[in-house]
Amino acid sequence: MRKTSFYHVDVTALMETAQGKRFPDLVIMNANLVNVYTREIYSKASISICGNRIAYIGGKDDFKEGPRTRVIDATGKIAIPGFIEGHTHLAWLLPFHTFLPYAARGGTTTIITETMEMYPMGGRAAVEDFLDSLHHQPIKCLATAPAMGAISEEILGIPLKDLEIMLQRDDIIGLGESYWQNVFQNPHRFLPGFDRTLKMGKTLEGHSAGATGRKLAAYLCLGISSCHEPITAEQVVERLRCGIHAMVREGGIRSDLEAISKIVKMGVDLRYLCLVSDGIEPKALKQDGYLEAIVQKAIDVGFDPLDAIRMATLNVAEHFHLAGHIGGIAPGRYADILLLDDLRKIRPETVISSGKCIVEKGTLEIKPRIHAFSPASLNSVKLARPMTADDFTIPAHGDHEPSLMVRVIEMVTDLVTKESHISLHTQNGQLIHDPDSDILKISAIEGTQNQMRHFNGFIAGFGLKEGAFASTGAWDSANIIVIGTDARLMALAVNRVQELGGGIVVWGQREKLAELALPHYGLFADEPMDRIIAKLDRIIGMVQKLGCPFPNPLLSLRALTGSAIPYLRICENGLVNLKDGAIAPLILKERERS
Amino acid sequence: MRKTSFYHVDVTALMETAQGKRFPDLVIMNANLVNVYTREIYSKASISICGNRIAYIGGKDDFKEGPRTRVIDATGKIAIPGFIEGHTHLAWLLPFHTFLPYAARGGTTTIITETMEMYPMGGRAAVEDFLDSLHHQPIKCLATAPAMGAISEEILGIPLKDLEIMLQRDDIIGLGESYWQNVFQNPHRFLPGFDRTLKMGKTLEGHSAGATGRKLAAYLCLGISSCHEPITAEQVVERLRCGIHAMVREGGIRSDLEAISKIVKMGVDLRYLCLVSDGIEPKALKQDGYLEAIVQKAIDVGFDPLDAIRMATLNVAEHFHLAGHIGGIAPGRYADILLLDDLRKIRPETVISSGKCIVEKGTLEIKPRIHAFSPASLNSVKLARPMTADDFTIPAHGDHEPSLMVRVIEMVTDLVTKESHISLHTQNGQLIHDPDSDILKISAIEGTQNQMRHFNGFIAGFGLKEGAFASTGAWDSANIIVIGTDARLMALAVNRVQELGGGIVVWGQREKLAELALPHYGLFADEPMDRIIAKLDRIIGMVQKLGCPFPNPLLSLRALTGSAIPYLRICENGLVNLKDGAIAPLILKERERS
Repeated sequence: MRKTSFYHVDVTALMETAQGKRFPDLVIMNANLVNVYTREIYSKASISICGNRIAYIGGKDDFKEGPRTRVIDATGKIAIPGFIEGHTHLAWLLPFHTFLPYAARGGTTTIITETMEMYPMGGRAAVEDFLDSLHHQPIKCLATAPAMGAISEEILGIPLKDLEIMLQRDDIIGLGESYWQNVFQNPHRFLPGFDRTLKMGKTLEGHSAGATGRKLAAYLCLGISSCHEPITAEQVVERLRCGIHAMVREGGIRSDLEAISKIVKMGVDLRYLCLVSDGIEPKALKQDGYLEAIVQKAIDVGFDPLDAIRMATLNVAEHFHLAGHIGGIAPGRYADILLLDDLRKIRPETVISSGKCIVEKGTLEIKPRIHAFSPASLNSVKLARPMTADDFTIPAHGDHEPSLMVRVIEMVTDLVTKESHISLHTQNGQLIHDPDSDILKISAIEGTQNQMRHFNGFIAGFGLKEGAFASTGAWDSANIIVIGTDARLMALAVNRVQELGGGIVVWGQREKLAELALPHYGLFADEPMDRIIAKLDRIIGMVQKLGCPFPNPLLSLRALTGSAIPYLRICENGLVNLKDGAIAPLILKERERS
Repeated sequence: MRKTSFYHVDVTALMETAQGKRFPDLVIMNANLVNVYTREIYSKASISICGNRIAYIGGKDDFKEGPRTRVIDATGKIAIPGFIEGHTHLAWLLPFHTFLPYAARGGTTTIITETMEMYPMGGRAAVEDFLDSLHHQPIKCLATAPAMGAISEEILGIPLKDLEIMLQRDDIIGLGESYWQNVFQNPHRFLPGFDRTLKMGKTLEGHSAGATGRKLAAYLCLGISSCHEPITAEQVVERLRCGIHAMVREGGIRSDLEAISKIVKMGVDLRYLCLVSDGIEPKALKQDGYLEAIVQKAIDVGFDPLDAIRMATLNVAEHFHLAGHIGGIAPGRYADILLLDDLRKIRPETVISSGKCIVEKGTLEIKPRIHAFSPASLNSVKLARPMTADDFTIPAHGDHEPSLMVRVIEMVTDLVTKESHISLHTQNGQLIHDPDSDILKISAIEGTQNQMRHFNGFIAGFGLKEGAFASTGAWDSANIIVIGTDARLMALAVNRVQELGGGIVVWGQREKLAELALPHYGLFADEPMDRIIAKLDRIIGMVQKLGCPFPNPLLSLRALTGSAIPYLRICENGLVNLKDGAIAPLILKERERS
């Protein structure tokens, strides 16, 4: 699919256009130009564009106009560079062709995405299929290779062989986020890949949530050059002082901008500060927009508009060593230009992306290329046979006590968990959950290898009063994750997920209540945006109606297999306490029971 | 010679030191730290160093002290990053082991140098020999591959085969300066090399002297990302607005800082502004210092000290994509740290370079490694036979007119020339120069190929009343360049240069007046610093005494073969007008004589 490299420039045509020997294809005439390099705005700038790049910027009438030159009169408008998303997860419900219109409409012209969701679902081929879906689109995408932080031994750490092949691609510009605890606990799984990545001149994306002082320094000593996990201005400043790019997150997982905006008054230089979404919910994407909404919020919470714009353009480009290509309006750069009426109102009425006018008078003028995912994508989710209620029984392991102390995942917030020790009754050699006390069954099922490997445990505080809730796309894994009040309903939910070829299913006491098919790799829906949003709304509404108190129960469910949010998590091999990364046996040993 | 890469990090030891599991080798305790990333200065910082890198920065007592940890108490001192020279020519009179002490003493810890002088004198092997001389030294050097702007067809444009081999080296971080007119006049000689360099993720160093508007834009469209040639604040701002790093030059060729300092009041962001020397005279190096003097001058002419320091540290590192290794005091970076008493007085009393204390109480504590240049270096300057007065005759080419109009190089300043048309007498079929009217003979002799290829012309305004002045190291060439009032003296001077194996010779009416041998590649002296300075002083003094009005006649002489300073230049093939890069015949054609 990929024919032209992101880095390709038709230098001869571009040079000739700059020299005035050739007519530009497009001119943005007489704009007020935001120069992100000098942090200035100046008036009467006319931007001459050749193909996908900017050739020359002159004064009001300083451009050539040929018979096929399109001239956009930008008198009174403000021209700013197209936005660059520096950290996100595009393999998250929406295929890129569904996501793209909503991103493009608001002026995002380049996205750098993680690929970590793809790799467990189909290895390198799945990553490549995903990358193909991103190219030859009206906006540009680059990606990081998956680092594969994970709690499951089988998944942990991208194999060098695959990493090396991926690093050869010029659309892979770095190694994706590697969770600091994972790295410290398993340096042998990560450090060789770090070394290879740095040797290729590519970046190591960080994830240093909560790390401070010596731990943070030790992690950064490995060559990590970004972190999108700081949640306070103080954490941001600590990272900036360490000379890494701090990415302020404002998206589907967390909204940190308001808390971090305190930094404006702290007098530190913001050149290493970036704005990122880290992923965004389809509904928010449609309703609120994408990076334009984040930049707007940055302005609203107190950042100077010029700083806010730099945080979503030049600063991100600099971090990835891409400033020669994107991030500013200057000769040689991609012609990614937004026209605004007001510097404080980030609502581009015109969006130029790679020299093409993709939004005019606020209306999207392009259609994304529909990517046909590989046939293998439809067969990623594989269970050897339908599951039954028996698959979710939890043996007391020959212990004939009437009750046993077990480790339970306890929800502390909608994402953070802790390890609780709770006494559960046994019956017929099985441990019995207790829905009345909100102690439900949870199971993490390896979903790609036809082996039925799974682990059953207990979770407290998820709130379901009845039913089961299952999903593919469980973080940092190839798991189907399911929580339920009843083993039979859990089996029904998981089997429906399998029937769908991957997806999200809510099963009530009597019937299926909601579902969304994610047939491609168990990750991507294949429906129009509005239906996806409606189905997700219904899923969330139903799970909440069944008792779950969380704002986004799907996020809460999928994060339970994740390797980065403290503390007790689950995978097909068992419970894992992130404090040491080791398997924590379900049933407490005699000496642990006190 | 090179065993360890600049990029190598002992990550395990560094990480353990950061974690506090291992004692640091060196601690700078309780400093006031200049953080170039956040543009802050904060107190009570203790910097723990492991090997050549910074592991951790904590509060006053926040460091481990083992039995072999050296602790430098920096109470009351200011710690700033070691300086980085972003553009210079180290192949310029002093071998690196002679240059180094004077650079190191003032706190320069990394130098990025051109290699263009080496390549014409011995090809890739000479470049490699030079690179070897730079490594395993107490301060770090990186280099750019020679782009080979030149007026001589034979030299013009580095052959791709050699460039590709050089680009594989990790101490070659870019392609050196390519003069914009050369590139526009001969795109086929440059563009393929640009493409290869950019594909390797390395930088293209620019030279856009005098270019503005469309010409500048066209040049930058090729992927050029720096220019060290702006001489006014306005030229700097134009370059910064184009998103390239503007390098302010303050050295042996020009001193532009004062004029450019006006930029401080222009309200533009300075993150793309760098300080460079572009080469420095041995005497100035010894007397005034190196980058510390340039940073000092920046402060003296009005830059905020924090900005001035960033311009010689972080900003340079960013330009070359080296900010993960150098340019700031942060975990994982090289331990390159200067201790000052006063932020406005750039006189480091302590210099830490790659974790070693190389200057203590103002005294240099290290000795450079003496590099033995390859035996071939001694045989670079090769003439087939001694030259005679006859070699410098200039035939009137069968024209029997009593006088002929000829093109003459006329010195406009000490460096800039113009093309003058002057009528000269002929005698016995030869054109006769006119020392009384300051019209001297000049000859550019191909000095490496044993072929005696040379071109004789005339120069006006050089000022010699008698004698001859010859030198190797003529810019952008493999030429011996000689100017004289008398062909016999010119032959004597050139033959002495050849005897010396390269060098600089001043010959008076009766005797040799001064000389400096440059036996290695005709570029490097092999004597102690003081003798080199004394000999250069004598050379300059003698040439001035002979009538030359220029402050640095050696620079004026050598620049006459250069391809970047307007307008009429000379090489072994003839006179070349830089306006079109074509050979300009010595004798004007009939139609040109009007």
